[in-house]
Amino acid sequence: MAKRYEEEHPKKAFGWAARDSSGLLSPFHFSRRETGEKDVTFKVLYCGICHSDLHMVKNEWGSSTYPLVPGHEIVGVVTEVGSKVQKYRVGDKVGVGCMVGSCRSCDSCANDLENYCPKMILTYAATYDDGTTTYGGYSDVMVAEEHFVVRIPDNLPLDAGAPLLCAGVTVYSPLKYFGLDKPGLHVGIVGLGGLGHVAVKFAKAMGVKVTVISTSPNKKKEAIEHLGADSFLVSRDQDEMKAAMSTMDGIIDTVSAVHPLLPLICLLKPHGKLVMVGAPEKPLELPVFPLLMGTYLVINKLKENTTPLVVDSPYRQ
Amino acid sequence: MAKRYEEEHPKKAFGWAARDSSGLLSPFHFSRRETGEKDVTFKVLYCGICHSDLHMVKNEWGSSTYPLVPGHEIVGVVTEVGSKVQKYRVGDKVGVGCMVGSCRSCDSCANDLENYCPKMILTYAATYDDGTTTYGGYSDVMVAEEHFVVRIPDNLPLDAGAPLLCAGVTVYSPLKYFGLDKPGLHVGIVGLGGLGHVAVKFAKAMGVKVTVISTSPNKKKEAIEHLGADSFLVSRDQDEMKAAMSTMDGIIDTVSAVHPLLPLICLLKPHGKLVMVGAPEKPLELPVFPLLMGTYLVINKLKENTTPLVVDSPYRQ
Repeated sequence: MAKRYEEEHPKKAFGWAARDSSGLLSPFHFSRRETGEKDVTFKVLYCGICHSDLHMVKNEWGSSTYPLVPGHEIVGVVTEVGSKVQKYRVGDKVGVGCMVGSCRSCDSCANDLENYCPKMILTYAATYDDGTTTYGGYSDVMVAEEHFVVRIPDNLPLDAGAPLLCAGVTVYSPLKYFGLDKPGLHVGIVGLGGLGHVAVKFAKAMGVKVTVISTSPNKKKEAIEHLGADSFLVSRDQDEMKAAMSTMDGIIDTVSAVHPLLPLICLLKPHGKLVMVGAPEKPLELPVFPLLMGTYLVINKLKENTTPLVVDSPYRQ
Repeated sequence: MAKRYEEEHPKKAFGWAARDSSGLLSPFHFSRRETGEKDVTFKVLYCGICHSDLHMVKNEWGSSTYPLVPGHEIVGVVTEVGSKVQKYRVGDKVGVGCMVGSCRSCDSCANDLENYCPKMILTYAATYDDGTTTYGGYSDVMVAEEHFVVRIPDNLPLDAGAPLLCAGVTVYSPLKYFGLDKPGLHVGIVGLGGLGHVAVKFAKAMGVKVTVISTSPNKKKEAIEHLGADSFLVSRDQDEMKAAMSTMDGIIDTVSAVHPLLPLICLLKPHGKLVMVGAPEKPLELPVFPLLMGTYLVINKLKENTTPLVVDSPYRQ
């Protein structure tokens, strides 16, 4: 049976695969397609570990198929390009993020919003155009259509660049999209995990005043000394939270656990925006009534964190 | 005791007041201040009945003081103006909405956002600058500072204009603020009550395609034939709702009862906006997880429905 994966395509590949929902990965010999005329093949040098990889390995979202090779923050060096590839050459540093395909003909695709395409193909555990399963970046070689490959600039270390392909764009995108990238603004970052620490670094690089909000007082040192945040709020300290009321232009909330929203909303200035990029499994409570007397709530339907991040063009939205 | 209200100010006034939380109003002789140099005095000809008046009459929000004269959609004809009043003359048609005062010196006031001023003074059941209680428009005469008086244009019937001062601006404002006022866009209006029917009329006047979403199939005729909506969805009809998925640029949700948000969010196009102007007393469930895989939610903190609506300048935001 294992033979099938090795012979499915002509190009040998090796990776680490989950075989069931136990959470264990084991060595996996499989194969990749030949470099098509619009394809870029690259040697994988680094791949980020995203929490969603862990969910997928354990089938916690119910959509996993096995064997499953995770990884959607994939970077490396180009080894071969197809005859119609225009942007990349052998030796270029490149990456692939959350998706490897889309219909290329719908409105979303026509507007560089392939992440909204109903036929968007995820980088792993999805079915590609040729009917075979996609495998991710916990592997030694990657083949992807040029359109879904991004350039990593030479001055960005590959290991540091990998997490930008999912965690990075997930927080970069709302900072840009909602105009929270202007010097002089004040942005709160809730949670200092994989998403949060990247959010702090982007916001600081944009010249924004950054306050980290966390349940853990012991994150203060990391936030301020290591990441350069301007201030730190312990979300359970009501005095601290009260003193910061109505001071923030926006908040990027990266917390995946169920948590109260009202204390965060109270930190916002009028017209401030609370952007939630974490994904609690249970619904959050949306306290509409306490915000009555001249307040309304807006829920934006957005789908950004699979936007391909063009790392060398930071102002592309 | 009643005498006190009649003699508090020099100008005699008559209205209808709640004396307790029973929900009953009874005749009330009270008084208004003399027309100050920046004040406009007008004979009240119509006053809208807003659902929040009922909440306040019954002290359902816990902030009521009695006697309480409700009414914050007040229109009439000017009878006297102070020496420094510039915009209005005797005989002009004018109105007063939700507020009659603010600090006039904070950032919000400096930016025509008096509704955000922490010292904003509500039209009734609040304490005015002179320490006396404010009384609303269920009365025969109104005195208000020019700054919080709006002009009603001559071609707008006064009775129809009154509800614009709260219900109207509550739905007009988000349509404008979120750019949902452009011909060619498709906007859903949830609920066809006091707010909803005005929202349909505004949106249609803006050239927007309007779909009314309601639990009541029997509202279809009113929505389409009387108000001019383009289509109608019964929110409990899963087939209808499914067919309309991802078709709307925005939704104005006017429903005050607790209701599921996910079916509404599913109607939105990418980047579509669900604007909630109703105010359920219990928190709503915000289903973050079903929107995972490349979606984030944004909660805007806004405070718009007490924005003074300048009726004769419809494009002022």
